[in-house]
Amino acid sequence: MLVNRIPFSEMAYASAEAAWLDKNENPYDIAPAFKEELRQRLPELAFNRYPDPESRRLRGALADYTGFPSEGIIVGNGGDEILQILFTAFTRPHSTVLTLEPCFSQYSALSEIHGVNRKCVFLEPGEREILVPEEKLLDALSAKPPSLILLDRPNNPTGTVLGFETVKKIIELSAGIVVVDEAYAEFSGRTILDDYKDREFPRNLVVLRTFSKAWGLAGLRIGYAICAPETAKTLHSVKPPFNVNVFSQEAAFLALKYKKWMERLVSSISYTRDRFIEDVNRIPGWVAYPSEGNFVLLRGNQETGSVLKTAAVQGLNLKDPGPVFRNTEAEGCWIRVTIGREEEMSKLLSLLRSLS
Amino acid sequence: MLVNRIPFSEMAYASAEAAWLDKNENPYDIAPAFKEELRQRLPELAFNRYPDPESRRLRGALADYTGFPSEGIIVGNGGDEILQILFTAFTRPHSTVLTLEPCFSQYSALSEIHGVNRKCVFLEPGEREILVPEEKLLDALSAKPPSLILLDRPNNPTGTVLGFETVKKIIELSAGIVVVDEAYAEFSGRTILDDYKDREFPRNLVVLRTFSKAWGLAGLRIGYAICAPETAKTLHSVKPPFNVNVFSQEAAFLALKYKKWMERLVSSISYTRDRFIEDVNRIPGWVAYPSEGNFVLLRGNQETGSVLKTAAVQGLNLKDPGPVFRNTEAEGCWIRVTIGREEEMSKLLSLLRSLS
Repeated sequence: MLVNRIPFSEMAYASAEAAWLDKNENPYDIAPAFKEELRQRLPELAFNRYPDPESRRLRGALADYTGFPSEGIIVGNGGDEILQILFTAFTRPHSTVLTLEPCFSQYSALSEIHGVNRKCVFLEPGEREILVPEEKLLDALSAKPPSLILLDRPNNPTGTVLGFETVKKIIELSAGIVVVDEAYAEFSGRTILDDYKDREFPRNLVVLRTFSKAWGLAGLRIGYAICAPETAKTLHSVKPPFNVNVFSQEAAFLALKYKKWMERLVSSISYTRDRFIEDVNRIPGWVAYPSEGNFVLLRGNQETGSVLKTAAVQGLNLKDPGPVFRNTEAEGCWIRVTIGREEEMSKLLSLLRSLS
Repeated sequence: MLVNRIPFSEMAYASAEAAWLDKNENPYDIAPAFKEELRQRLPELAFNRYPDPESRRLRGALADYTGFPSEGIIVGNGGDEILQILFTAFTRPHSTVLTLEPCFSQYSALSEIHGVNRKCVFLEPGEREILVPEEKLLDALSAKPPSLILLDRPNNPTGTVLGFETVKKIIELSAGIVVVDEAYAEFSGRTILDDYKDREFPRNLVVLRTFSKAWGLAGLRIGYAICAPETAKTLHSVKPPFNVNVFSQEAAFLALKYKKWMERLVSSISYTRDRFIEDVNRIPGWVAYPSEGNFVLLRGNQETGSVLKTAAVQGLNLKDPGPVFRNTEAEGCWIRVTIGREEEMSKLLSLLRSLS
């Protein structure tokens, strides 16, 4: 297996046998039959021609898969590009964007790049769970109404899922665009889309999905969003013209035929996750918070940097989620762990035991 | 050959045999040996892992190919993305951007999306050539100094090449970033890079290149820019993290091994272009302007829409470049024709003769 990755930053200790538990990737490659199908299609793809700018065939397939009309679907070069398109379409310098904190790192990166003020509602770390101050979130809508509200559900890096009733209230109360980022929804089994199947889709709601996590196609960069057709029209109008390449459009189109494979991997990863959480919580000095993603937030009583370094020397690449709860007195070591293969998690458990 | 394209807009007349002479694509697919090599690499690519965010292996190969250090090279999801990154990095709403007019359509699209004022210096259509008012271009630098100057060289859709001395003066006089867009430079044989091989690269110069035209990889979306390392750093800081997918990085890396193939195609297309221009200029009522791109601007005395429709019915898809010289009295029919295969150009010549 060719490694896409030239180890970056201080994680360079990692050997070829390294476990990459730092990017919330799917540890399993796509189905062999799927890869073979792609390989067979390759000679038929005209690389010298621009891709369909509107990804129509793929959007049609996504409409069948999701049950929402293709006029309300937009496809991007990863969910990252759709987030960028949302910032371009709905913010101007000095606009206000509302997010949870901590949250997906791109929300703050894009706020900075676009010169936008980010208002944060801080999650609260309890002994055994992360609390979402839902009242504060609703209050934050009134003071200076945000143009864009970005809610990762499950939240990254905590794995917590914001209550559905709260999300619904936010959509109803907000004049701005509410983005419910469901990058990890397949691992949670909970999607707000279910509630909008048989009624009009709110014009200010955008539900973000990706092929990078459950579908195992992070390397091909395909994300999509579901929204009202009018909203999709606005997003399409600021989208770069040929944003999703020919090969990735083909791959995502074919991927949908392997839904069962994806679901089996999701079950397996979720099972590994739940057992990993139980196992960590039996180790003195470590807490694993409940998670509905393919990652788990750990808390220990050592210094984050030195734990990460020790892990890296053993070929375990973990993620420093930064100062996750900088509003509280919460101290200690915070680490985000992607759920990898069984053997990788066993190795990590041994390490955590040795550090307890 | 699978058609990437679901015919869009009113060009839907086109049959499966259609000639796509509307997007300045390379009419030839990549070398069979290259495609086979890609097909063989496919099983080794880990699609479940994110691509290298900094495209390091590809940038290394581009450094070897261009002779400029990889620290001053940035790779994007097509040249389109690099243009978007340039707008994000160097403009704010109400900034001024300077372009030629006509010019690549994305310059005005991005100006609108980013709320930027576009100042235009109009090209002037002569009887047999397009004139560039170089003095006016230099004057435009002084009034309200533009933050970004976008110079397509060759210019799209005219095929004209802005004088090198003028470009150099603009770089010297301008406080803003000067983007020399060399998307079609391989067909011209002229690049301003030659002049910066052995001396310091100006901090305000960005030279844009693409794999979409001469290299025949429009479908895979790979563009790159060469600039000073400090400038590349700024561009990298606003770039979406994983912007170029695993497959396209691999393809562009391998493509460089097929430089000779590319050069042969470029010779062949340039030869076809020059003969096509001569042939058109022998048809009464039509003028083909000299061009250094893989496209030619035609002028006729009929109505553009009806010519395009007649062509489309015959399976010839041409491009309406819009009101190209709206500053002048220049009337008539303006059409941009991509240089396709010999037989496609013969078919088009017959049509033009029938319309003369």
